[in-house]
Amino acid sequence: MYSVIMAGGSGTRFWPASRRLRPKQLLALTGGRSLLQQTVDRMAPLTPPEQTLVVTGADQAPAVAEQLPELPAGQVLGEPQARNTAPAAGLAAAWVALQDPEAVCIVLPADHLVTGEALFHRTLQRAMEVARSGDHLVTLGITPRYAATGFGYIELGPEAEAGEPRVHQVAAFHEKPDQATARDYLEGGRHLWNAGMFVWRAKVLLEEMLVHQPELAKGLAELIPHLGGPEEAQALERVYPELPKISIDHGVLEKSSRLRVVRADFGWSDVGSWEAMAELWEPDQAGNASQDGEVLAIEAKGNLVSAGGRLAALVGVDNLVAVVTDDALLILPRHRAQEVGRVVEELKARGKKEHL
Amino acid sequence: MYSVIMAGGSGTRFWPASRRLRPKQLLALTGGRSLLQQTVDRMAPLTPPEQTLVVTGADQAPAVAEQLPELPAGQVLGEPQARNTAPAAGLAAAWVALQDPEAVCIVLPADHLVTGEALFHRTLQRAMEVARSGDHLVTLGITPRYAATGFGYIELGPEAEAGEPRVHQVAAFHEKPDQATARDYLEGGRHLWNAGMFVWRAKVLLEEMLVHQPELAKGLAELIPHLGGPEEAQALERVYPELPKISIDHGVLEKSSRLRVVRADFGWSDVGSWEAMAELWEPDQAGNASQDGEVLAIEAKGNLVSAGGRLAALVGVDNLVAVVTDDALLILPRHRAQEVGRVVEELKARGKKEHL
Repeated sequence: MYSVIMAGGSGTRFWPASRRLRPKQLLALTGGRSLLQQTVDRMAPLTPPEQTLVVTGADQAPAVAEQLPELPAGQVLGEPQARNTAPAAGLAAAWVALQDPEAVCIVLPADHLVTGEALFHRTLQRAMEVARSGDHLVTLGITPRYAATGFGYIELGPEAEAGEPRVHQVAAFHEKPDQATARDYLEGGRHLWNAGMFVWRAKVLLEEMLVHQPELAKGLAELIPHLGGPEEAQALERVYPELPKISIDHGVLEKSSRLRVVRADFGWSDVGSWEAMAELWEPDQAGNASQDGEVLAIEAKGNLVSAGGRLAALVGVDNLVAVVTDDALLILPRHRAQEVGRVVEELKARGKKEHL
Repeated sequence: MYSVIMAGGSGTRFWPASRRLRPKQLLALTGGRSLLQQTVDRMAPLTPPEQTLVVTGADQAPAVAEQLPELPAGQVLGEPQARNTAPAAGLAAAWVALQDPEAVCIVLPADHLVTGEALFHRTLQRAMEVARSGDHLVTLGITPRYAATGFGYIELGPEAEAGEPRVHQVAAFHEKPDQATARDYLEGGRHLWNAGMFVWRAKVLLEEMLVHQPELAKGLAELIPHLGGPEEAQALERVYPELPKISIDHGVLEKSSRLRVVRADFGWSDVGSWEAMAELWEPDQAGNASQDGEVLAIEAKGNLVSAGGRLAALVGVDNLVAVVTDDALLILPRHRAQEVGRVVEELKARGKKEHL
């Protein structure tokens, strides 16, 4: 069994804390450990460091390795170029298959938060049984807690086996819905959040790629002889940028008859923007919350502050996000937290590389 | 002729930039020089360092001396306790009188800004003539530019001499008016802003103090033998805290028949709060202004930022003041900039001395 941590995100939604070389998964947004470290910690009871693999951008690989000193050398795979999730998952499966083709990969995003670890582990155990017993590709679907418009959804098909209410075939994948559709999904009870967590045998994924993504499978076959060897980086440099740029959902799962979904009820957040921290930091009575410093609020409520340990004095302002780093200050309303991407675009346009 | 710089302010209105030991006059709020340094620079064409005296709080004296290395030792007088402006002006007059009782003192606040230096100097020259020719106490009155409610006013009496339209007797001092009264003052044309700038011969002020503040005059007389000597600090420690706590306006000027006001038209700001920086920093087209860093504004206008050289990214927020220092962040609406004092009070209540 292997944990495969997908740490390819170069997300800009936590600017100015997140940067090109310090993406969200490397930030300690809650407590002292980064989201990546927390993800590895969370899997430690199931997979030791020797069975943990991280796939990340080549330029971020040194920072990733630094955060995970317990990982053996060579278990941080650097993508020379971001090609979406299908090549990344395929690369990891190829690497694992070289050790043991029958081994199960538990594929997890590096930048999500999970609460309720026991339930998380039980859910993964169930997913592994399904992946092993029928050579299935298993995706986890989170029971929605509200009408979210920020996630894709997995529509449940029939129960996969009688008496197994938590394991289903998949009727369809749906992109992020509008508000009305999200409400229908929530009420209908047959749509689950697509959290990007998967379980499969390494060889099963590679077989399904051969069928549904032959070009990708061919590229991976070219890579396999070099994985773990001295030519690995060079081979990746040559082959990886030519791989089809496609998600694992679109590229493989949607097309596969071996797909199953396991319903999951553990606490989960994709930590999608500063706004998400409203749930994850501990707010005071007025709803003001800070990552790591004291808030002194006078007639101020619902503000989210990340100020590098500074005392934050807020007077007469409501529902703002305020972030201070060594070289930048960001202020915007919480309901516009997603728009921090516009700042990053503008910085690019102005050529302000030092702030990217 | 001596410049007497009154640097006793321990103002909290520029928190978190201003602190107990780093009051407003020591801050470089505009450009590279502090308000105190700019005040001394501005007087340099009239008075060399040997004729420049600063009165400040004893605990701030080291920082003041450090900012003004050109001043001869002993010309920063430290008040062991703040006793308002009458004792400070009296102390300076006593010090100057020891050098030359006939010398004229030009008394100026350390924490104001003046623009139009030539006109400023001409106005002071005129005030000195008035102070010298008739042994007058002269106060400057600034022609109001708007209906300000944040200043005291000087009501003009009759012209002091025929053909001298800029020199008047004083009919009355008025405290900060309400908005309607301020508008009447502005329209009436007979009320000038009280800027706390004065010109008088040292001995004339001391004479008038003897008449109108005999207790204060007695205290000063006790101090005089020790000024400039090795016992100065000790004498101040003993005598100063017992001096009457009263302003020079209330304590002496209002009572004196020798008072004259000279009308002044140079540009002046008392730099009363962060809000004042809207005029003093250069705003962009959307009215966003920063002390020393770039502002990247997206649908944001009228914001004032002091972020220690950081890039400030503002999205969808208007008319805020945002200040970042090494250990604090302040955010509040511009129209509530005065309320930063409430933050300082709260910090005191919480015993957070490191932030005061």
